[in-house]
Parts: sequence; C-alpha cells; structure tokens
Amino acid sequence: MKQSHIDPKALRNALGTFTTGVTIITTRDGEGHAVGLTANSFNSVSLDPPLVLWSLAKTAMSVPAFTESTHWNVHVLAAEQQSLSNLFASKGEDKFAGLELDNGVSDAPLIKQCTARFQCRTAFTHDGGDHIIFIGEVIAFDQQDLPPLAFQSGQYAVTAKKPWQELKLSSASEALECSYSEDLLGYLLGRAHFQMLGKLQKTLSAESMTAAHFFVLSVLTIQDDISLEQINAHVDYAGQEITYEHMAELVSLDAVKQDSERYVLTEKGHKAALLHISEAKVIEEELIAELGEGDVKALKVILKRLIQHTDPGLPDLWANAS
Amino acid sequence: MKQSHIDPKALRNALGTFTTGVTIITTRDGEGHAVGLTANSFNSVSLDPPLVLWSLAKTAMSVPAFTESTHWNVHVLAAEQQSLSNLFASKGEDKFAGLELDNGVSDAPLIKQCTARFQCRTAFTHDGGDHIIFIGEVIAFDQQDLPPLAFQSGQYAVTAKKPWQELKLSSASEALECSYSEDLLGYLLGRAHFQMLGKLQKTLSAESMTAAHFFVLSVLTIQDDISLEQINAHVDYAGQEITYEHMAELVSLDAVKQDSERYVLTEKGHKAALLHISEAKVIEEELIAELGEGDVKALKVILKRLIQHTDPGLPDLWANAS
Repeated sequence: MKQSHIDPKALRNALGTFTTGVTIITTRDGEGHAVGLTANSFNSVSLDPPLVLWSLAKTAMSVPAFTESTHWNVHVLAAEQQSLSNLFASKGEDKFAGLELDNGVSDAPLIKQCTARFQCRTAFTHDGGDHIIFIGEVIAFDQQDLPPLAFQSGQYAVTAKKPWQELKLSSASEALECSYSEDLLGYLLGRAHFQMLGKLQKTLSAESMTAAHFFVLSVLTIQDDISLEQINAHVDYAGQEITYEHMAELVSLDAVKQDSERYVLTEKGHKAALLHISEAKVIEEELIAELGEGDVKALKVILKRLIQHTDPGLPDLWANAS
Repeated sequence: MKQSHIDPKALRNALGTFTTGVTIITTRDGEGHAVGLTANSFNSVSLDPPLVLWSLAKTAMSVPAFTESTHWNVHVLAAEQQSLSNLFASKGEDKFAGLELDNGVSDAPLIKQCTARFQCRTAFTHDGGDHIIFIGEVIAFDQQDLPPLAFQSGQYAVTAKKPWQELKLSSASEALECSYSEDLLGYLLGRAHFQMLGKLQKTLSAESMTAAHFFVLSVLTIQDDISLEQINAHVDYAGQEITYEHMAELVSLDAVKQDSERYVLTEKGHKAALLHISEAKVIEEELIAELGEGDVKALKVILKRLIQHTDPGLPDLWANAS
C-alpha cells in the first residue's frame, strides 16, 4: 500500500480511536497578548529530564507566538471545563476575556480549576509533517483532584475505571448456559437501584417510613396540592404504586394534610422530605468516596442518555413548579 | 522553581491525569524475532504526510530492535484486550506465543482484534531525555468497531460519551432549590431500571405475564424445586415480592408445577423463560445500538462496582446450580 492510498479522513477516524485527554496550551505573543488553543496531541516523553510534547498545525494562527516565545503552559482540562475546551478550540479573538489567571513561573497564562498544569520551557522543536512538534521541559506543575475530560472518536468523554479483573457478582458457573444472566443490563440496573434504595430504607425505617412514603414526600416538595392519581403519575418511574393507605399513613404521621381529594405537605412533612433527600445525598457521597468522583460522573452521564433513549414520556414533574 | 525541585513520582502522577488509549507496538529484531511492548505515549502528529509518534525508554530491552528496524506497527487496543496489554507490559520472553498474526505490509507482527492498527515506517527518531521519540509514516492502517481500552491515572478505563451539552431530563427550573433532584443517583438508577423494565413489560403482557412472573421463571431456570420463600430471597434485589397468587397464576399458565410446597419449571415454563430472557437481550441490543457498545460496557463496569460496594449480601443464586 503506497502513501498515495491513504485517505486522510479515514486516517483521522482511525487515529481518533486512540483516547486522549484534552489540554489547553497557552503562551504570550511578542506584544504580550495571551494566546491559547485546545490540543489533544499532548503526551509525556521523559521523567528525567522532565519532558512533555505536543504538536501544532503549521497553519495555526498561533504558530509565531509559540515559536517566538520560550515558555508555554499545558492545562489538562477537568470534565467540568468542556465549554472552555470549546472556546479555545474556536477562532475567537477574546478567549481570555473574563478568565481569572494564576501567577506562574513565566508570563504564560495559567488557567484555574484544571486537573493538572505543566509550566514548560521550550526544549526543542521538530518538524512533524503538517505540524510542528514542541518538546518542553517541565519547570513547575500542579494537580487537583478533579475528574479529567477525555476525547474519544471525535466526542468528549469521561472515563470509568476498569477493574484489573472482570468483576464477578456471584460464583456463577461458567457452564450455565441459559442463565438469568448477571451481565444483563436490566439485572444490573435493578440490583444497583434496589441496593441503593436498601441503604435509604434503613434511615426511613427509623421514622416508620417506607420508600413509598419517601417518593410521595419528594414529589410533594416540588408540586403539592395534587391528587393521588397525579402523585402516582410522577412515581410511576419507580415502579411504585401509591395507595390511599400510604397517604393515610402520611396523614397520621402529620407529614401530609388532605384537602378533599388533594394532598398538601405540612411543615413537618417538608422537613422530613428535605432530611431524607439529604440522606440520599449522603449515601451518594459515600458511594463517590468509594467509586471515585469520575466514575459516578460517568455513571450519571450514561444513565441520563439511557433514560432519554428509553423514555416513554413521563409527565414533567417540574413543569408547573414555581 | 528549578528543575531540581521536580519530584519524579509527583510528576508521573500529574502526567497520568492525561487520559490515553493503550497501544502495543511491534517490530522484528535483526534475527527476525518478534518484539513488542505496551505503550501509551502514542499520538498522531500529521495527516499530510501521515505521521504518528511514540516514545521508548532508552533503558528498554527492545531499543536495538526498534532503532535497527525500519518498520513497526501500532495497535490501538480494544477494551477486551486488557490481558494482552498486561502481557506486553511484562518482561516475559514469549509474548507472541500462541498469538495468531495477520500479514502486513512489512514483516512487523500484526496482532488481530484491535480497535485500530497503523503500519509504519520510521521517518525520524529524536532524542527525548530518558526516552527516544519515534516518528513514523503510516503506510497502511485499518480500524474495527471495537470499544477501545483507555488508561487514566494508572488504571485501565473505558470511556463514556459526554454529550455536547449537559442532558436535562426535564424542564427543571434552576430556581428550584429543595429539588427531588433529577441528578440524584438513586433517581437516575430507578428511572433507568423501570424504563428498561417497561420495555420488557410490553412483550410480557402479550402472554398475560408481569415482571413478577418473569423474575420467578428466571430464578427457576437456574435453580428449581425450591419454595416460595427461597424464590423471594432471590428476587429481593428487584424490590419484588412474589405471592402465592403469582405462583398460582404461573401454574394456571402451565409454566410451573407445584409439588407440595416446592415449585418446578415445566417444559413450557422453561421455553417462556428463555424467550423472555432473549427478549431482554434484544432490548439491550437495541440500547447498545443507540448508546454505543463502549458506553453500555462502561455502564456495566460501573454498575458492577456499585453493586459490589453496596451489596448487603444476597444469597448466591448460582451456588447450587449444576
């Protein structure tokens, strides 16, 4: 196969399968203006001496600034900095407007709230076809505990840790063919959901409440003065059916007042709802501590996409919230 | 800050926050022996001419092979190739033993089942501190639709697409403070679970079955001749309570036979269970088509970790399965 057969678009797609982080690289031009761009061609080269590299298209407007300056900073972006990545990938003039900067070793702009930052001095530049390869010596660096933004096949991404070995939830026999497969997504979602709910149940039990009561209170904190039918429409997603008996229990607990066929939250019910929601958040915080913030973020991102794709059309609980 | 203040270990940690894919790079030494190693220092450089680069530690055993040979292949590893990554990261002699290879442009080993492969001819090498930087011209490449393996802060990872904009599941008012937050993990898990179940419910309804019946049949395919109490212990994760009424319905559908207090699957019940499990798999396949195989893989990986961390200790359904 000769070089002339290489289709640049197909090559770009294939190269894009290599996952990368996302960086913003900054410097100042001869007049002291801040210059910066988004790049995913960053990589580490050497620890001793500490060297990193990245590539810049020869056609980029910022080529003179980077070739003339001696210092530049690499910012490994956090997952929250996606919009900053977009901004610095654009051709806008005023990318630094309103951006608060830290003081660095050189005068190269140093952006806040990144996962990691490497302040570099140009060590070498090399020709790399239609790009220039910058190799820099790291003269200072820092790091924050923020899940990083990733880039994969032309899309932003977050990463989820892959255990060293495949996790087995049970001692499943490999021989079992027609299995109620523990790898089936529905099973995993159900078990994860109910184990989370099980943790919440413990705190609810202390107040003679069940998950059903919790769901009712949660709905009523957002929209109250609604009928049982309306409540059920909102908790339907949770596979719950709320009965008049549940509502009577909440009335006897002084959490809910009944006004003809409609239900209103009492002050006590409002406080209980907030307490239980915050307890649910504590359970989530504990999980974040165990699984890592990045993984919980990844989980939420995928669940939201799944929910959007499987949504049969639920009533919008927030539609009439004031 | 002077270079002498750079702590190599801290620098390595900070550099590790930049997410990468994982590659295996192969060549042949002067005697024709296959040589290969795992590297995450790969990156693309230029499309025209098509150039890529990677770095090799000067202390690596394979330095002579790579500096003396003119051709090498870069394999972007698939998520399933984690054990191959471990193998080629080790110092073992016989890494290629039993590994089936494809024929490439050069004699450099070409490994199968990778996400992408780039067959390269050395264009330049550059000094990079304690590493040598290899820049290669891509002379052939190919790509398969396999989710890639990633590497992040010293751990293997898989990626989950991050939508261009944060997904909003409802028209939630930003002003709403005490919200039954749609960002709460418990809510997302519950809604995702029941929406998936809702899709299955449609196919079950056609046979007068409910999710409860499905759960019973699924349990009995793995272990039957058990009591209602034992069945309930196994479906507890799903928040289901199976009643004698449910069991009587399954008996009347000729799916289950009752033998004193124990239940046994009939041939018809066995077929129904397999049908519904395969329907659940079809629903999952449709979701994979929508969300992408990599994202569903990432979802499962995180759910398994979550389940392991929140497991209150369920009875092992498979323990006595033959």
